[in-house]
Amino acid sequence: MAGRSKIPRQAPSAACCELISDELMQVSDFFCTQLDCPDGRLKPFIDYLKGQQGKMLRASFVLLAGRLFGRATELHIKIAGIVEMIHTATLLHDDVIDSATERRCHATANNLWGANFAVLLGDYLLSRVFVAVASLQRDDINRLLADTAVKVCRGEMLQNVCRGDFAIGIEEYLDIVEKKTAVFFADCCRLGAMASEADEQSANRLYEFGLNFGLSFQIIDDLVDILGEESRTGKTGGRDLLTRTLTLPLIHAASVLDSSARNELLDAFDSRQADINRIVSMLNASKSIDFTKSQIVQYRQKALLALESFGPHPAAAELKNLCKSLQ
Amino acid sequence: MAGRSKIPRQAPSAACCELISDELMQVSDFFCTQLDCPDGRLKPFIDYLKGQQGKMLRASFVLLAGRLFGRATELHIKIAGIVEMIHTATLLHDDVIDSATERRCHATANNLWGANFAVLLGDYLLSRVFVAVASLQRDDINRLLADTAVKVCRGEMLQNVCRGDFAIGIEEYLDIVEKKTAVFFADCCRLGAMASEADEQSANRLYEFGLNFGLSFQIIDDLVDILGEESRTGKTGGRDLLTRTLTLPLIHAASVLDSSARNELLDAFDSRQADINRIVSMLNASKSIDFTKSQIVQYRQKALLALESFGPHPAAAELKNLCKSLQ
Repeated sequence: MAGRSKIPRQAPSAACCELISDELMQVSDFFCTQLDCPDGRLKPFIDYLKGQQGKMLRASFVLLAGRLFGRATELHIKIAGIVEMIHTATLLHDDVIDSATERRCHATANNLWGANFAVLLGDYLLSRVFVAVASLQRDDINRLLADTAVKVCRGEMLQNVCRGDFAIGIEEYLDIVEKKTAVFFADCCRLGAMASEADEQSANRLYEFGLNFGLSFQIIDDLVDILGEESRTGKTGGRDLLTRTLTLPLIHAASVLDSSARNELLDAFDSRQADINRIVSMLNASKSIDFTKSQIVQYRQKALLALESFGPHPAAAELKNLCKSLQ
Repeated sequence: MAGRSKIPRQAPSAACCELISDELMQVSDFFCTQLDCPDGRLKPFIDYLKGQQGKMLRASFVLLAGRLFGRATELHIKIAGIVEMIHTATLLHDDVIDSATERRCHATANNLWGANFAVLLGDYLLSRVFVAVASLQRDDINRLLADTAVKVCRGEMLQNVCRGDFAIGIEEYLDIVEKKTAVFFADCCRLGAMASEADEQSANRLYEFGLNFGLSFQIIDDLVDILGEESRTGKTGGRDLLTRTLTLPLIHAASVLDSSARNELLDAFDSRQADINRIVSMLNASKSIDFTKSQIVQYRQKALLALESFGPHPAAAELKNLCKSLQ
């Protein structure tokens, strides 16, 4: 697309896959088994869900955090599967809300079977999460998983309520990103540590890593939505503009541009089909793209710093690799 | 509406409310407390959810089943609140799926804020259910709540998949009704018994009561949708026809009418705005309304029979009253 540069996005690195490849296979098996359903009529939809596992980044965080303190156990596998189930359910409902037609280079459920059925599929996944969580018999882990789900929902609702509202500042944007995305990564790390009975200080450091990774991850995701990269992300680009979702570059620009340029930006944003090239050119002029990239770097550095105390452990190295691939 | 007779629907009786009125107040308080959220921007929506408690029929079942074996404890209150939270979440998503504009004589969430936000509100409620369930610290109860949620979702998906498919027979219709509605009532009864550490046989009898009550309840609900009663139910009538949901009277008629009358029924059903008066007249001609009413009576009788062994206990009497009010 003219005027849109490329921002690289990478799946978990091959090295990471190698270190925890066996465990990721087990997570995938757990994910599929949990979805099984005896109703023949529902088989095509259950099969579709089974194919929605994606990169399993959140599962990798659980497993790698666990590996820092020994082997990944059955409990790690189950937790990793559960976080992927929660993530997949949120994606199903996200795609309904954004009327997205593609995800991970495949047609979304709402595209295939309509928004209504996609809502039900997401609910079914969540009900299966209930069952899987109940099987853990670990109240502390259940509570953290539940708290995570609440924060994600609060973040999603806040994002929805704030659509098109240029009055939200950078702080409120970051609060939303923290809730809807970063806390999930952070809690995945903490869950991995908890399942290994790790000490509180280590669990906190891993949480810090996940939180800053997540902030960096979401800001990149938002930037990619503006600057392009559909071919690499497999998602429909420009969705945030279409759904009037304000992200960091726009919020920054609105805060630094003079009154006339700000009005021009608002006009471009408000036009029925947001003029993406005009917006990108204004974001460049206001150095909002540069500012956004500097924020990404800053959160990535904070994330890497949080892992320092784990030294050269292979699992820490893989978490760092995942983090460095965010650029 | 011309051609539509009245089917009475009653809220829990005053006597029932008296017997467990204190507990229902506590359930209501628990429900509201669980939804609390520190985000100021979300307050109007959380307040809306707090007002969505309705008749609390499922909560009453938990409490009354518990009362059969002594007092209703804090555990009963929490479980009763949780089942109401699950029920309210399913109603939010149901209304999105049916594009319903009214529920309980108030505008639906999708009517007020659009389908997308209503999906998120339902998800938020479900995430709060996670938190509440995790606080119970009773694995057996957590598992049953989770299994209930799965069955409800399976029932909802099956209903959706079977829309407009006259090939489904009475048995498949009853299977869907059992999953999406009856099992929920049945499990509410069992949960009340479990929280009281009741014996297995009593819990099974209460389950049997709830299951047959639920079948009767849903068949009435489906019949009311065809025959009218919007003013009493507070719901938009004729929704099943609009959403092409096949219910017992239609399925029965399709199975007994001769080929030409059957085609006429299908035409009336398939017409862009289903001709409800023409359909009702055909359902009367095929005695499908009578058949449906006989099924309602049959399940109600089965439900009452399941309570016989509890003798004249006031809680059993109230469950019977609730059941008898279904006519």
